[in-house]
Amino acid sequence: MVTFEESSVDVLIIGAGPAGLMACNALARSGVSVRIIDQRPDKVAAGQADGIQPRTIEVFQSYGLAERLLKKGNQMHMAAFYNPSPDGGIELTDRVPDVTATSARYPFEVTLHQGAIESIFLDSMRGSGVGVSRPVLPISLTLSEDESLLNDPQTHPVRVELQHLLENGEVGPTEIVHAKFVVGADGAHSWVRRVLNISMDGEQTDYIWGVVDFTPDTDFPDVRNKTAIHSNNGSCMIIPREDDKVRIYIQLDDKTAHVTADGRVDKNKLQPHLLLEQVQKALHPYYIRTPEKFDWWTIYIIGQRVASKFSARERVFIVGDACHTHSPKAGQGMNASMNDSHNLAWKLAHVLKGWANMSLLKTYEFERRKYAQDLIDFDRQFAKLFSGKPRTKETDDGVSHEDFLKAFQTFGGFTSGIGIRYAPSAITSDKHQSLAKNLIVGQRMLPQVFLQAADSRPVEIQNLLPSDARFKLLVFTGNSSDAAQLEKLRMSSSNLEVALSDLTAGRKVISTFDVVAISSATKASVRYNDLPKFLWSHWSKVLIDDADVRGFLGGDGYTNYGIDRTQGAIVVVRPDGYVGMICPLHEVNDFVAYFSGFVGKSAVITN
Amino acid sequence: MVTFEESSVDVLIIGAGPAGLMACNALARSGVSVRIIDQRPDKVAAGQADGIQPRTIEVFQSYGLAERLLKKGNQMHMAAFYNPSPDGGIELTDRVPDVTATSARYPFEVTLHQGAIESIFLDSMRGSGVGVSRPVLPISLTLSEDESLLNDPQTHPVRVELQHLLENGEVGPTEIVHAKFVVGADGAHSWVRRVLNISMDGEQTDYIWGVVDFTPDTDFPDVRNKTAIHSNNGSCMIIPREDDKVRIYIQLDDKTAHVTADGRVDKNKLQPHLLLEQVQKALHPYYIRTPEKFDWWTIYIIGQRVASKFSARERVFIVGDACHTHSPKAGQGMNASMNDSHNLAWKLAHVLKGWANMSLLKTYEFERRKYAQDLIDFDRQFAKLFSGKPRTKETDDGVSHEDFLKAFQTFGGFTSGIGIRYAPSAITSDKHQSLAKNLIVGQRMLPQVFLQAADSRPVEIQNLLPSDARFKLLVFTGNSSDAAQLEKLRMSSSNLEVALSDLTAGRKVISTFDVVAISSATKASVRYNDLPKFLWSHWSKVLIDDADVRGFLGGDGYTNYGIDRTQGAIVVVRPDGYVGMICPLHEVNDFVAYFSGFVGKSAVITN
Repeated sequence: MVTFEESSVDVLIIGAGPAGLMACNALARSGVSVRIIDQRPDKVAAGQADGIQPRTIEVFQSYGLAERLLKKGNQMHMAAFYNPSPDGGIELTDRVPDVTATSARYPFEVTLHQGAIESIFLDSMRGSGVGVSRPVLPISLTLSEDESLLNDPQTHPVRVELQHLLENGEVGPTEIVHAKFVVGADGAHSWVRRVLNISMDGEQTDYIWGVVDFTPDTDFPDVRNKTAIHSNNGSCMIIPREDDKVRIYIQLDDKTAHVTADGRVDKNKLQPHLLLEQVQKALHPYYIRTPEKFDWWTIYIIGQRVASKFSARERVFIVGDACHTHSPKAGQGMNASMNDSHNLAWKLAHVLKGWANMSLLKTYEFERRKYAQDLIDFDRQFAKLFSGKPRTKETDDGVSHEDFLKAFQTFGGFTSGIGIRYAPSAITSDKHQSLAKNLIVGQRMLPQVFLQAADSRPVEIQNLLPSDARFKLLVFTGNSSDAAQLEKLRMSSSNLEVALSDLTAGRKVISTFDVVAISSATKASVRYNDLPKFLWSHWSKVLIDDADVRGFLGGDGYTNYGIDRTQGAIVVVRPDGYVGMICPLHEVNDFVAYFSGFVGKSAVITN
Repeated sequence: MVTFEESSVDVLIIGAGPAGLMACNALARSGVSVRIIDQRPDKVAAGQADGIQPRTIEVFQSYGLAERLLKKGNQMHMAAFYNPSPDGGIELTDRVPDVTATSARYPFEVTLHQGAIESIFLDSMRGSGVGVSRPVLPISLTLSEDESLLNDPQTHPVRVELQHLLENGEVGPTEIVHAKFVVGADGAHSWVRRVLNISMDGEQTDYIWGVVDFTPDTDFPDVRNKTAIHSNNGSCMIIPREDDKVRIYIQLDDKTAHVTADGRVDKNKLQPHLLLEQVQKALHPYYIRTPEKFDWWTIYIIGQRVASKFSARERVFIVGDACHTHSPKAGQGMNASMNDSHNLAWKLAHVLKGWANMSLLKTYEFERRKYAQDLIDFDRQFAKLFSGKPRTKETDDGVSHEDFLKAFQTFGGFTSGIGIRYAPSAITSDKHQSLAKNLIVGQRMLPQVFLQAADSRPVEIQNLLPSDARFKLLVFTGNSSDAAQLEKLRMSSSNLEVALSDLTAGRKVISTFDVVAISSATKASVRYNDLPKFLWSHWSKVLIDDADVRGFLGGDGYTNYGIDRTQGAIVVVRPDGYVGMICPLHEVNDFVAYFSGFVGKSAVITN
């Protein structure tokens, strides 16, 4: 029996992998009406992507999800490198920190299988009353061409036809959904991307890799480190995982990989124990026994491609693997995907709530497509180095350990996600960069421990920047224990209050902005309630830049940020945790100009 | 209708406050058959004890309960002191760290109301399938006088008659419980203590204090610090609490407190707003408004008493307020109570499992009664200082701030719980103290961050000392990257294996002992699997004494502990986290002698 249902929703997400779930969870938390569908009957059970980079851990923390991630996942702190030894085997060449980005709040990578990561989102979404409709297939998608509809964010210009599948695999009811926005998070073979006729730019490389997941029995001493092995019997990379498992990536030649005449890998001709045999050769003289079972395995040819567009009229978006594919070894895939959604979600929320106009949505492609291009550029260089033969006496053109290590460390800011910097745009203004020299506009807000002024409890500033779709105004007040400074601060606060009230057009300021005051006073002298009340909605929102009672945590925040202790500054942190702009404390014109560029009230709706 | 039931249990606990619940949770986790009853129909809803000291947080951590405590509770990092100002009001004299014990892992106190703390235990116990039977009253308790029964830990020499109460308050069925052991955790007016005819030694002081709990509206700048106010209009103490509440202790004179002719306080004549009026006077010139409601309030006269005995024949024990009462201001009560149970529980578990003989139970009174006596000595001095008039020009005999601060800091090791040191006994042998000069035998194991050798992940050593009723053998191996040292270590390990196998009389060693190896090798050179397999039941049990990849955490553990990097040592940590003995690495005779003193196999059952 086929029935038709018809419904409407603010945002329809197609695909419930990590990218789709990140978007769904973020939107649901912001109170946006959202629905998510997936054609798989259940979440991923094992294998697939599983590396979480330091920046992504910070992002999870901003959604209140890091605790579970850290509890369940394995941590990689150290990277080890093995190279050919004189006696024909391999030997340890070097151990270095896995994460080289010095400002990372979490100086390690987490590994946890994709299904466990999906569960973290699913449980969080359940708290907002949202679940995944599955198995459901999208059949058709139509975007209205009516400009007046497209320009008004409160209309439903996208019509999507959905096909429900029954448990027995038979075709169930069909459904029509009218959506204000659609997010295609449906993977490398994205149906949404094909429907929108968006091309993928890039190429396939010659590198073929196998992957096996299992619990190892080995005498290899670096099996719990991220270990790159270059041997004369092939290369492989060990990624330790949760529950004492490891993942091993193995470079394959065409013969071992059974590459067909048309350049595809014939997976039917391979078995995981054949992949493990390559590992056993590369690891010699160490043993690694063939396990009774493999948890997961696959094989692939690296392709590096980026979608030519990331949206259709800022009404239908693609995120994650739907917009970029690359090699998995540097562990970027799931991170890039989830961070696409993290970038997009707050922008959709602001437009849907009428806080910002449609132009804000253009910044999604602007910021994330550039990132995706940088990612495949990096990946191309890294894959080449990794797949190259080791340099030995005989092969002078091989890759030396020094080359490889240099690349590993040079790319550290990129692979950790910490170094990502969004270029200037309507939401990223570097005009007053000099007021906070080290808080780079377009980069994520630097972690730093301050103390709560009222009780000297240490608090990481990132904990005050939750992903709740609000802009954070960090008001660096200078020394509030100084009477003259306090008097100036009262004036600034008053001006800021007027500006914010104007920008929010009568809405409660607190629904769009959160204000935190950071004084350079000491814990011995500060009186938190001296500060103008507008700067602290709660006593815990007044911080001081001082070390904790034992001198272990905090202090030097103004210095680390490059902010003058007398002059102060207002730092605007975007809802996704990136520095949006910096403004002089005693003059709010540029602050108003920044927000006027995209805030609903004073900006014209543009397309 | 009255029916009789009859049952038997290993341990019956009477009283489900913090002391009883701590004992019950610990025993249930150890797999001991345990039952707990309480005469109250429900757990405490508000008020009562609520301060958790640094050492108690460590103890909670050892049971896996600290996370929730820290999430729900308020933290006190700073103590502030106010004294009379020249203009007749008060002024800030000083702010100092609330916790002065430098080795505290958690350098703060947590405040959380007693009901929330009870919930933490109740939820944990639920995981072991144990709940509180309530409301149930004990009616009679009979201890057998048959020596052969009393000497055999597997008999049930205690007969307790219980009276169930119905929801409507009427009398329900009666029940007979035959118990191997009974724990009386039934408070200051303990029924168990009275039945056993144990006297309380000590006296009542003249100090009368009121307590109010509420959410303050005030301009007083130190309302979120632990603040002692000595004014010429009376003294009070502010304890900030969870959910923006505070508790205030107020010193009262006889008139305000309505002391009756026979020296008792007439609570009917008092109301909380009368107590708050005293606070308002003491806080002048700051305001603190009378709230619409008080969450809780009480009034008491300080009494300092210790029970003359803590058990009857090591078959019936008393713990907590049943054995000691004192003033609440230094926040010791609940901590002392829970730590009584923490001390007793593992000993009961060892005896019940046949691992140790009955003599082990004598150490409970030996260790905890001495502590209780020290506690009331401290309390007597502290209460006197606190209740004294402030020293001014007119009152030369008053208490100066310097006196008070000195006492506050001198007693810091005691009030934090960190400095508690159990005297030498069968389970506390300081013979080889010189091998680890700073790991004081009888004190709790010092926190220290080491790295997991296999993956350089930092780990706090206390995390490897869970309260699981097992002794922990920390084998400080010296430098395992050194071939000669490794060879010596193989011999030691082999000797240790034989000794443990002998001591455990064929049981699995792992059920009584956990072994952790700590090498002084570096993260660059260590090979965790070089160590003898007996020293690591899992790769995560090999640690190294080195700093983490960023140099922020760990390193200098051997130095901090005072252990020679060549000589090494074996440190025996008792199941409750206290250092039990230290043994030379290359000679295990004293190790065997220590355990033979109380372990079931080779020791004679004594009474």
